[in-house]
Amino acid sequence: MPKKPTIYDIAERLNITAATVSRALNNNPKISKPTRELVIKTAAEMGYEQNKLAQALKSGKSHNVGVIVPRIDNNFFASVIRGIEEELYPKGYHVIICQTHNKEDLEIRNINSLLNAQVDGILMSISNAKIEEKEGFKNLLKKSIPLIFFDRKRDIQDVSTVTIDDFRGAYESTQHLINQGCKRIAHLSNDRLFLIYKNRYLGYKQAIIDNGLEFDENLVIEIESKISEGKRITKELLALENPADGIFSSSDFTALGAIEEIKSQGLKIPENIAVVGFSNEPFTKFMELSITTVDQSPVEMGRIAAQVFLEEITNSKKVKSKKEVILSPELIVRKSSMKLENKFI
Amino acid sequence: MPKKPTIYDIAERLNITAATVSRALNNNPKISKPTRELVIKTAAEMGYEQNKLAQALKSGKSHNVGVIVPRIDNNFFASVIRGIEEELYPKGYHVIICQTHNKEDLEIRNINSLLNAQVDGILMSISNAKIEEKEGFKNLLKKSIPLIFFDRKRDIQDVSTVTIDDFRGAYESTQHLINQGCKRIAHLSNDRLFLIYKNRYLGYKQAIIDNGLEFDENLVIEIESKISEGKRITKELLALENPADGIFSSSDFTALGAIEEIKSQGLKIPENIAVVGFSNEPFTKFMELSITTVDQSPVEMGRIAAQVFLEEITNSKKVKSKKEVILSPELIVRKSSMKLENKFI
Repeated sequence: MPKKPTIYDIAERLNITAATVSRALNNNPKISKPTRELVIKTAAEMGYEQNKLAQALKSGKSHNVGVIVPRIDNNFFASVIRGIEEELYPKGYHVIICQTHNKEDLEIRNINSLLNAQVDGILMSISNAKIEEKEGFKNLLKKSIPLIFFDRKRDIQDVSTVTIDDFRGAYESTQHLINQGCKRIAHLSNDRLFLIYKNRYLGYKQAIIDNGLEFDENLVIEIESKISEGKRITKELLALENPADGIFSSSDFTALGAIEEIKSQGLKIPENIAVVGFSNEPFTKFMELSITTVDQSPVEMGRIAAQVFLEEITNSKKVKSKKEVILSPELIVRKSSMKLENKFI
Repeated sequence: MPKKPTIYDIAERLNITAATVSRALNNNPKISKPTRELVIKTAAEMGYEQNKLAQALKSGKSHNVGVIVPRIDNNFFASVIRGIEEELYPKGYHVIICQTHNKEDLEIRNINSLLNAQVDGILMSISNAKIEEKEGFKNLLKKSIPLIFFDRKRDIQDVSTVTIDDFRGAYESTQHLINQGCKRIAHLSNDRLFLIYKNRYLGYKQAIIDNGLEFDENLVIEIESKISEGKRITKELLALENPADGIFSSSDFTALGAIEEIKSQGLKIPENIAVVGFSNEPFTKFMELSITTVDQSPVEMGRIAAQVFLEEITNSKKVKSKKEVILSPELIVRKSSMKLENKFI
């Protein structure tokens, strides 16, 4: 059986480097279209068979990048993914996505499956509040592929992160409610082992204290980011002897649940209770009673996370380092909290 | 160097079959928990290293299944994926997802990337209206892995499909508008090379004809499934000398755009113009003016597509065959079209 031609044979025939042949066959945008076409034509003539998997095993590059998120049917994560794709596709990388549904065991399976699929790196927003303690995750850390956390992160050595300034987003939201006249503001929080929720809580608390209001721990409730949970908890909050006159929610979904419950009790928004969410999910804008929320620039977050990946993969053999990128949040004031027009928002 | 232990060595040590060892190491639910734990413990003691990729190459099974959709940030596709996951995870399969953003070249890259990642099958909703003509797709057809189309399909030999009865969904939607008194119903369509859009168009047309109304091709417009497109086209429709009094849209997003435009012109919904969408996206329910739409049982569609995959992977060495599953649509009548109460909907 004749020896199968390699990229070196193609390179020799065309008098170019093997690296150029490889790049051309992998659609690397650095290679001009005529060169790429010539390489592909020559490769076909010589009977070259590109075994991408063998190639990936040899070079350690599959040009697939894995993205893990709690859920895909959520505008925030879908937009981050779009940002990642927009940045990586032109660089010749392909994005494959897994979702965890917030289940810890699924997250570990996601990691294993992506490693089995030979991804060149993993970008993830975590579902395990103590992911660093899991075996499957420790295994990932030992691999020499870039790992980047975005949004839902933990502080782990050598793992770069891209987040927004959640403290500031929360502080500004709470300050806005206070400016609108709210004096007793509840906070719908979530598992504060996740830094995003911890920082939103701390920003809320600081704004309350800085404005000389009473900080009441009973008005802070940890719930899952679900409409039904927002409803359930708001029912309890409204039943208090001294009920809240404002709600700052760490999630648009729980904010929506709160709004549904408040309306169903015949109370007025924002007159009786003002509500602010977090994430700028599209429904917050579409609703008749549009919801005040915090925009997290998700597409930009995805783009930056992808850029950090590209930097790390280029430097992967050198010194390990950690990069922390913190984006600015933007408070978007809408009807659900606008009691006063033209006064400090 | 001592020979590395294999699953056969573990099997011998435990006096069980190698197949049982393999299943236990792959978390196959057929294996009891005590057996699985014993196998894992023994494997660790013997220094067994599971090379999953090598295993995949050898057995042809990675236990990863690829799913390709136009977009993930859309409740319909996200729900189908959830259905697929719910069915496959308990069977030991893992789902990895790619999106095409409706771009033909990205769809082919998705296919190649998933093949490189050694997926055991691909479940997809197509973005190429003539996918059967693409080289990358022909390449996929030659592989011996199951391929299943859901929702957006083409009729291709040996490719099983899971869809809803789009004709019927459209027919019932149009009949409902006629029952509400609409006489001049526009149809916001989409690229009818896709069978779903073709069938929705045909169902609409048939209902018009069956009710003795005039079928006017000028009231049928092909647009992309975007809010902005719905707005733009509705502006044109309202400017007609003899404007429409009803809109049946093949997409909830274009229906939403239509509603925004109608409202902005000071017209009343449903009194002046009644609107029906398609897909039952969550926002259709949340809105103050809730939108009548057609539910497509997406989770069920995903579950069935996954079941078809499981059947095919079990039979993959036998005769090729094609399965067509057609689910029933359900018209959900809401405020955007309810002119008459308690009369035939």
